[in-house]
Amino acid sequence: VSQDRLLELARAAHVRGWTWATSGNFSCRMPGGIAVTASGRDKGRLGPADLVLLDDGGLPLERNAPPASAEAPLHLAIYRLLPGAAAIAHTHSLASVVLSRRHAASGAVELAGYEMLKALSGVTTHEHSERVPIFANTQRPETLGEPLARALKEHPIHGFLVEGHGLYTWGRSFDEAGRHLEALEFLLECRLKESP
Amino acid sequence: VSQDRLLELARAAHVRGWTWATSGNFSCRMPGGIAVTASGRDKGRLGPADLVLLDDGGLPLERNAPPASAEAPLHLAIYRLLPGAAAIAHTHSLASVVLSRRHAASGAVELAGYEMLKALSGVTTHEHSERVPIFANTQRPETLGEPLARALKEHPIHGFLVEGHGLYTWGRSFDEAGRHLEALEFLLECRLKESP
Amino acid sequence: VSQDRLLELARAAHVRGWTWATSGNFSCRMPGGIAVTASGRDKGRLGPADLVLLDDGGLPLERNAPPASAEAPLHLAIYRLLPGAAAIAHTHSLASVVLSRRHAASGAVELAGYEMLKALSGVTTHEHSERVPIFANTQRPETLGEPLARALKEHPIHGFLVEGHGLYTWGRSFDEAGRHLEALEFLLECRLKESP
Amino acid sequence: VSQDRLLELARAAHVRGWTWATSGNFSCRMPGGIAVTASGRDKGRLGPADLVLLDDGGLPLERNAPPASAEAPLHLAIYRLLPGAAAIAHTHSLASVVLSRRHAASGAVELAGYEMLKALSGVTTHEHSERVPIFANTQRPETLGEPLARALKEHPIHGFLVEGHGLYTWGRSFDEAGRHLEALEFLLECRLKESP
Repeated sequence: VSQDRLLELARAAHVRGWTWATSGNFSCRMPGGIAVTASGRDKGRLGPADLVLLDDGGLPLERNAPPASAEAPLHLAIYRLLPGAAAIAHTHSLASVVLSRRHAASGAVELAGYEMLKALSGVTTHEHSERVPIFANTQRPETLGEPLARALKEHPIHGFLVEGHGLYTWGRSFDEAGRHLEALEFLLECRLKESP
Repeated sequence: VSQDRLLELARAAHVRGWTWATSGNFSCRMPGGIAVTASGRDKGRLGPADLVLLDDGGLPLERNAPPASAEAPLHLAIYRLLPGAAAIAHTHSLASVVLSRRHAASGAVELAGYEMLKALSGVTTHEHSERVPIFANTQRPETLGEPLARALKEHPIHGFLVEGHGLYTWGRSFDEAGRHLEALEFLLECRLKESP
Repeated sequence: VSQDRLLELARAAHVRGWTWATSGNFSCRMPGGIAVTASGRDKGRLGPADLVLLDDGGLPLERNAPPASAEAPLHLAIYRLLPGAAAIAHTHSLASVVLSRRHAASGAVELAGYEMLKALSGVTTHEHSERVPIFANTQRPETLGEPLARALKEHPIHGFLVEGHGLYTWGRSFDEAGRHLEALEFLLECRLKESP
Repeated sequence: VSQDRLLELARAAHVRGWTWATSGNFSCRMPGGIAVTASGRDKGRLGPADLVLLDDGGLPLERNAPPASAEAPLHLAIYRLLPGAAAIAHTHSLASVVLSRRHAASGAVELAGYEMLKALSGVTTHEHSERVPIFANTQRPETLGEPLARALKEHPIHGFLVEGHGLYTWGRSFDEAGRHLEALEFLLECRLKESP
């Protein structure tokens, strides 16, 4: 059932245009580890065989499993830092890539005054300023655990951007992860429309 | 049948991308009250169980009903002010959110010279200027009844914007509500394209 | 069969987002007259009952027919001026509305250097400049026959814009009409992207 | 089977809006030649009868075959220059047409710093600068083999633009061709969003 919801989350992101060219990856907690999308799969035709089960150390729990997404270590780091997270979505949308490059120098995109902020759990009014930190891109995604840990100490956050690479967000349930994803993508698109 | 049309109206808005992250809400008059979408539902998978029946005072007509949208009181206020309204759509589109923020200081978006204005009931020529008022956002949506009452005294209007929050529109039938929704969203998108 | 193709042409335009809020109208020649979409129909759920048969003078050929589109007289004027036209599409797209307003003062949009121009019948090279005339909008659409006749004498054209109102195009077959429609909409979108 | 994958590649491009008005063409290697889309076909309703088999010299391998795309000679030139290419996609997207015109004078679009570059085979880091050359448009597409041969000597490339005409890309498999197509279109859309 979790795996069905995970595939559904990935497909919903795909139809919105956020995972072109096999980009994006998605995971959820499972007993003893996580399920994560396999490396290099077309998110438009994802099936159960495109998911890999990893233990908490990132080792495959099944023989002959295809390689997990190269960003699985970052997913594991997020689950370690956020014990409540049940599912993680990483999208590679136009808005998140463009804004992550534009605001890289300032280290964050600030989102304030939007009613949509209330779709982020714990936010109860549009009079809120959400800081979406931007981390430098790296080919060693597990190293992003460190700046993420620092960011989490400073502010409660609901997601982060990686420069030129896209958005990571999560939720304590699939519903929450999906809602955070749509809310953050919407807010980033607003920002892009506001200053194109 | 009304409920089917209400679900159809909500789904049509969803496929256009105007109700991401459980945003947006929709209602119609029923004998003795209104039917309104329940709070926090994904408009992409809305069914009859996601509608709540309220009496004219906003109290649920059925036991164990899920909570109605937090904006149901604003829907009720609109029905009180507009006795002819049969259905109301509130969308949370990019264009309505962006323009409502940009024009908040002037209190309205003016739309003039577009043939599409004729899709608004009572408008018979493109030589018309439609004033779409913008109200400040609030977490007590029922308080918007007051500025709406004032706006209705000044001009005939077909909808209004809430700053950073989106569009409200209505119709004397589902067809009219749906047409007003598409027409106003189209006109707002034109405005956004004209000065991005 | 012609009616099936006409419905198909209208639906294809609708799914592209060019006929929101019952806008747009479509017609084809029939023995003794034309078939045209009825007034005020949602192009997203168009069926055979939404077409009206008119004689060459614009009178309905069937009893109890719903009223034809208010722009049927302009369709008839186009068929009179262009004896080879078999089908006409009028779309109400964002790009055509926005550009028709922006370039209204100059009376035309010029499109040059695009390979897509070759989708317009008779154009054999991208080294072509296509003039798309823009006529002032009017609530008496039949009066546009006159400026159209003048425009046709000056240049071969494949379509025209009406200010704030959209695009008219046609073809000697349904295939050609559909191709001209997609080509002109594409070219207008290019122009809009090139100078937003 | 190859033909099914070719039709799938073309349809996937069509639903993204990259082949309006019968534009775009697609091919794959076959024993003794290539299969290529026939001239002037609507990519939205492409079937096996819309493919033509050509020998390596460009002559049809089947009697009564419809004429191949006028750009088939360019496809053949690409296969000669790139012995590893198994499939070629030529799309006519807004982003590729607009950017090919904007950057025509400089002869290329440079794409750097994007994680999406890693979707291009052989690119292993976002710290890569991809040069997408732009060739002048011509009504004799086979003549583009010459500037392409020069470009291939200078840099490894994964695709090229033709001014006002669109994108050509390829892959050693259908999966790779499809991934290169989505990656390059994504990167071009990013560029267009970054400087509209």
